Amino acid sequence: MSTAPANKVPGSGDTLPTRQKGLDYFFSPSGVAIIGASRDQHKLGFGVVRNLRDCGYQGGIYPVNPRGGEILGYTCYPSILDVPDPVELAVLIVPVAATPGVMAACGERGIRAAIVVSGGFRESGPEGAQIEAEVASVAHRYGMRLMGPNCIGVIDTTTPLDTSFVAMPQPGNIGFFSQSGAICGGLINWTRGRRIGFSRFVSLGNQADVNETDILEFLAADDHTKVIAAYLEGVSDGARFSNVARRVSASKPIVVLKVGGTEDGTRAVSSHTGALAGSEKAYQAAFTQAGIIRAGAVEELLDWCYALSSQPLPAGDGMAVLTNAGGPGVLAVDALQRAGLHLASLEVSTLAALRTRFPPECALHNPVDLLAAADAGGYADALALLLADRNVSGVVVLHVPHVLVDAPRVLEAIGRTAQAQHKPVVASLFGDYAGTPELDVLHRFGVPHFPSPERASGALGALRRYGRWRQKPAAAAEDLQTVDRDSAAAIIREVRLSGRLKLMEAEARSLLAAYGVPVLAGEMAGTAEEAVAAAERMGFPVVLKIASPDILHKTDAGGVALNLRDARAVKRAFREVTSRSLGTFPEAVICGVQVQAMLSGGQETIIGATRDAQFGHLLMFGLGGIFVEVLGDVSFRVAPVSRPEVMEMMRETRAFRLLQGFRGQPAADLDAIADCLLRVSRLVTDFPEIEEMDINPLAVRGAGEGAIALDARVILRSSEAALR
Amino acid sequence: MSTAPANKVPGSGDTLPTRQKGLDYFFSPSGVAIIGASRDQHKLGFGVVRNLRDCGYQGGIYPVNPRGGEILGYTCYPSILDVPDPVELAVLIVPVAATPGVMAACGERGIRAAIVVSGGFRESGPEGAQIEAEVASVAHRYGMRLMGPNCIGVIDTTTPLDTSFVAMPQPGNIGFFSQSGAICGGLINWTRGRRIGFSRFVSLGNQADVNETDILEFLAADDHTKVIAAYLEGVSDGARFSNVARRVSASKPIVVLKVGGTEDGTRAVSSHTGALAGSEKAYQAAFTQAGIIRAGAVEELLDWCYALSSQPLPAGDGMAVLTNAGGPGVLAVDALQRAGLHLASLEVSTLAALRTRFPPECALHNPVDLLAAADAGGYADALALLLADRNVSGVVVLHVPHVLVDAPRVLEAIGRTAQAQHKPVVASLFGDYAGTPELDVLHRFGVPHFPSPERASGALGALRRYGRWRQKPAAAAEDLQTVDRDSAAAIIREVRLSGRLKLMEAEARSLLAAYGVPVLAGEMAGTAEEAVAAAERMGFPVVLKIASPDILHKTDAGGVALNLRDARAVKRAFREVTSRSLGTFPEAVICGVQVQAMLSGGQETIIGATRDAQFGHLLMFGLGGIFVEVLGDVSFRVAPVSRPEVMEMMRETRAFRLLQGFRGQPAADLDAIADCLLRVSRLVTDFPEIEEMDINPLAVRGAGEGAIALDARVILRSSEAALR
Repeated sequence: MSTAPANKVPGSGDTLPTRQKGLDYFFSPSGVAIIGASRDQHKLGFGVVRNLRDCGYQGGIYPVNPRGGEILGYTCYPSILDVPDPVELAVLIVPVAATPGVMAACGERGIRAAIVVSGGFRESGPEGAQIEAEVASVAHRYGMRLMGPNCIGVIDTTTPLDTSFVAMPQPGNIGFFSQSGAICGGLINWTRGRRIGFSRFVSLGNQADVNETDILEFLAADDHTKVIAAYLEGVSDGARFSNVARRVSASKPIVVLKVGGTEDGTRAVSSHTGALAGSEKAYQAAFTQAGIIRAGAVEELLDWCYALSSQPLPAGDGMAVLTNAGGPGVLAVDALQRAGLHLASLEVSTLAALRTRFPPECALHNPVDLLAAADAGGYADALALLLADRNVSGVVVLHVPHVLVDAPRVLEAIGRTAQAQHKPVVASLFGDYAGTPELDVLHRFGVPHFPSPERASGALGALRRYGRWRQKPAAAAEDLQTVDRDSAAAIIREVRLSGRLKLMEAEARSLLAAYGVPVLAGEMAGTAEEAVAAAERMGFPVVLKIASPDILHKTDAGGVALNLRDARAVKRAFREVTSRSLGTFPEAVICGVQVQAMLSGGQETIIGATRDAQFGHLLMFGLGGIFVEVLGDVSFRVAPVSRPEVMEMMRETRAFRLLQGFRGQPAADLDAIADCLLRVSRLVTDFPEIEEMDINPLAVRGAGEGAIALDARVILRSSEAALR
Repeated sequence: MSTAPANKVPGSGDTLPTRQKGLDYFFSPSGVAIIGASRDQHKLGFGVVRNLRDCGYQGGIYPVNPRGGEILGYTCYPSILDVPDPVELAVLIVPVAATPGVMAACGERGIRAAIVVSGGFRESGPEGAQIEAEVASVAHRYGMRLMGPNCIGVIDTTTPLDTSFVAMPQPGNIGFFSQSGAICGGLINWTRGRRIGFSRFVSLGNQADVNETDILEFLAADDHTKVIAAYLEGVSDGARFSNVARRVSASKPIVVLKVGGTEDGTRAVSSHTGALAGSEKAYQAAFTQAGIIRAGAVEELLDWCYALSSQPLPAGDGMAVLTNAGGPGVLAVDALQRAGLHLASLEVSTLAALRTRFPPECALHNPVDLLAAADAGGYADALALLLADRNVSGVVVLHVPHVLVDAPRVLEAIGRTAQAQHKPVVASLFGDYAGTPELDVLHRFGVPHFPSPERASGALGALRRYGRWRQKPAAAAEDLQTVDRDSAAAIIREVRLSGRLKLMEAEARSLLAAYGVPVLAGEMAGTAEEAVAAAERMGFPVVLKIASPDILHKTDAGGVALNLRDARAVKRAFREVTSRSLGTFPEAVICGVQVQAMLSGGQETIIGATRDAQFGHLLMFGLGGIFVEVLGDVSFRVAPVSRPEVMEMMRETRAFRLLQGFRGQPAADLDAIADCLLRVSRLVTDFPEIEEMDINPLAVRGAGEGAIALDARVILRSSEAALR
């Protein structure tokens, strides 16, 4: 598996895979039937016919209603079977119970795609869910694609086509899809005045057939779409979504507003990893790995798509701010820093040219404040100088309009100058300005406007985040030596045969060893004497740990004795460890005691994996002890991972500084940690039946000296769970 | 010092202190002279006359221009001296160099307050700064108050009065002041369409005379102002600002957008506290302690003030969301949680009533989704039920308008219902809707509208944060026993007499002991034999530490030897410690070696204080070791602090869980930590000349067992620095 950005849009060849899947019939059908069309202006069945007429759609428009007659001048057919050719798409606004029958009629008529607008299906209970399944099965039987039910359908400014009953958005190059219909209407209301334009606008509804990944693939292959935006409440197939998104974002940015970012906290877990992971962590990790830019609010989604749809990507982190007033300039600077960017140090030649051009009272370091007198010529000259500066990767231009200066002329000068350079320029007039001539001027030159300096800076931050993703080098495939899959399979088979799901420590250790993870050797001892003999073979001091399939948290059960320095101590510890464990867990089956060499030194880390219902295994990394237990200072990625991804995982933890060599301590062996993470990633990928596992601790020595697993826990998935 | 909210607005008695200071002349003058008035529509001198005429001001309007004639029908006087009574306020739009002379003429004429609009003073260099000082001194000489220079003056919707040249904001009850003039114009543009209204709107400019705290006091006493909003780049007197703000926010909310939240990182520091503190930390701490609500962006400033100006405060954290569409509802829920609130569990009776009233397909748990069919009656009934629920402290009402429902009727129903209960209601139509009839309806009922569900939830969060502040109980004054100020003064005097700024450890320990902080006893030893004798007196094991005024970081210099168990070890350590220290610092003066009992156990914490130029001493608390050094996990407050404030400080650190008793460990003695923090607070308040100090570590034992300072560093301020 590779994170390498591909050079081509998937499916941008001659044969579109999505065409074969029939999605094109939703966007460029030869004709549209509106089943449930109405003459009543307050009904959806009227709104859809009106929108189809008003949007400029060039194909046939065929209202269907048993009453016949005319709607808005179109002949109304009593049944879909009566509709003449050409017709490929049907929009259904009919009662829930009637939908399966109407769908079947559509199938008979040769309809290729159907949008079911009506609600009252799965979202309203088991009865509705059953009818929804029936509708999907009818569609499948006739080879029709189905959008919805419970959606507002498709608005397409490129065909053009509008099967909805809401207002049309501005034309543009943002492709948007949503799992909420209400969000669609709101976004259109919001974006019209701001001149944010869309190519395709899709409301997916209940996703009985067409789902978010289908539309993602369609928009990826769509030449009219430069940026993909989505409102998601969840994904139906995490693995497929991730794979497609990763491929797509190599050439087109995907910005997602994913809601429901809280956990219910009721899952039963038996490892640290399980306790700290969760579906929100999995979404976050999957989005990060797929290069998806995650917006935190509707306004961010729109702002960022607007910038990505109109501006080139910045090549670096250094930005300039150009303003005619100090306050807004400071707001932009603060927000640039919050967005992970910084103010560029201007080149000496730029500063000199600015000083020659502008009066001395102007602040000509970055941010460049031309003061209130700045006119069109001043803005043009300063912006040209900033864009030509090698240290500047992008510019936030602020212009607070006032009576002494002609704002449209200033904005035209900004627009013309911005066009001349291949660097991003974002603007703010400090105010809403929706629907004003000022925004029209900026729009003409493709310069995006944001109500506040902060939001302009934030949009530049999103451009840069996507730019960094695009700049990432291709990851080489990992060739892990010494992975013995057969031995691992045999160990797991044995555990299952003995009717268990929890591996004993020795089994867990063998499993890791089979995948090349260094583990501390140990011997099983059934008696105190055997324990002493084992200790003498491996050399004092040693550690004793209770071995029982029923005891996973050995320390808590009193089942661990550390630093035993001689035979007498081992003998006494054997008795204590067994009796304390049985005291805590009277019913536990004790198989004996593990004897291991006592290791000291090294930085304790934790590596874990847990299965996420959507995305597969979630890998975890963190420093051990309080870092994981008190601070929850861990990072996650979805397996399988690449070497650059595991390096990122390590750097993401706050305690990473401790591994780099802190206060004279030597740097830890980061390569050894990375290797272990890659091997655990491979292990859980090869054995999806691993439900949860922890290596805790993985003791990491200095650079080049390796890491070693001191303890491990592995829990398999029950066969029943696997069937669910 | 007490954080107790006062019951009265300061100065709300009969005699306004601000009246005596002459600020009222800026807002309700008997007449206004515009010096530099112009007939040219493109000049500020025209705009000011026009705005004064158009705003509805009832007093005399007197343009002044040597050319005489008429402007907009007003007689234009050649000089301020010619202007007839009544006139109290002058607005100056004259060249920089002419300003002192014009100001003097104003003084002669008996003008009481002057607004200097022109720029080109302090902000443009030393020459401008000198003229600015001259202008201020003229004002002082004549007892005139001066606003600016470099400002847009005052807009007052209550008098009404408008000395600016920008558009007038909507009338309302938010009092706003700004250190940036450009921000003012932008805000007005932004708020008009949203119906956010202002009582007084003040641009302070360079603050040569009237500053942010003066205006804060004025607005606090102003009956027309319910909420105070500010854009700040800095404050001129931190201590005065904090004291006034703390008093004001006990009865009126203050929302501040403070910019410039980054540190230059170039300060020279010699303690952990110094390294982690900084002016941004000081502002944050001062704002927290004064109850100031800090907005992170312009939109938050406006949103939050809008909510505070129109809604009652929520009594608890449990909120309800009422919607006609799922997606926007989820966005609101996510944002509520981000704002520190949660969804209320509805009472059984509420759920039952909702179930009776609404069809089964509606989602009637919280969030309550009435689905698209919801009409005015449905909204009214559901909102009434939610507001009557004892578990609900506030409601976010979302209505996504669509063709099937009459939005204005729904909004009227929401407005009427909201008015009937004393709980906050915030609304979003999911879209901008600025300037639409929909917003007029909501405005009529005083329900604030926010473009997005997220921003509506965020505003509810701000209401609750201020509500929590208002609910805080009054803090009792701390009566610290055993504070011996005279001994402390003697120690500091001795250090200064010996020509030093850094206290030696024994001196620092004595200083702390004088203020009742428990310190580990130690004895000085000049020879190895003295060290052994001391160790035998206090009992083994002991610690040796080098004692030198030149060595602050003893461990780094090899100047510490731990856990010495017998006389031989002490003897050897004495030699090693002295020779290693001299090896590291060959020039250091070695006074001997400190012998202390070796303490083990206890949780290591750090307490520190450092002087901030604006706010005085900043106290710091954190857990020791990696928590402070790697994670920077510390909290700050401005001294002096109350007991509830130091408890908050402790709880703010991420590692607080470790102090509460983690994994079977006993809880730490939080009272002992609090006591030490209070004593350090008293110490630095009594001795402002303490530049920086650390107690590192303060070893904290179990509850009731106390805490003890093991090491301390104190550095005094140089006399030259104190003079700066």
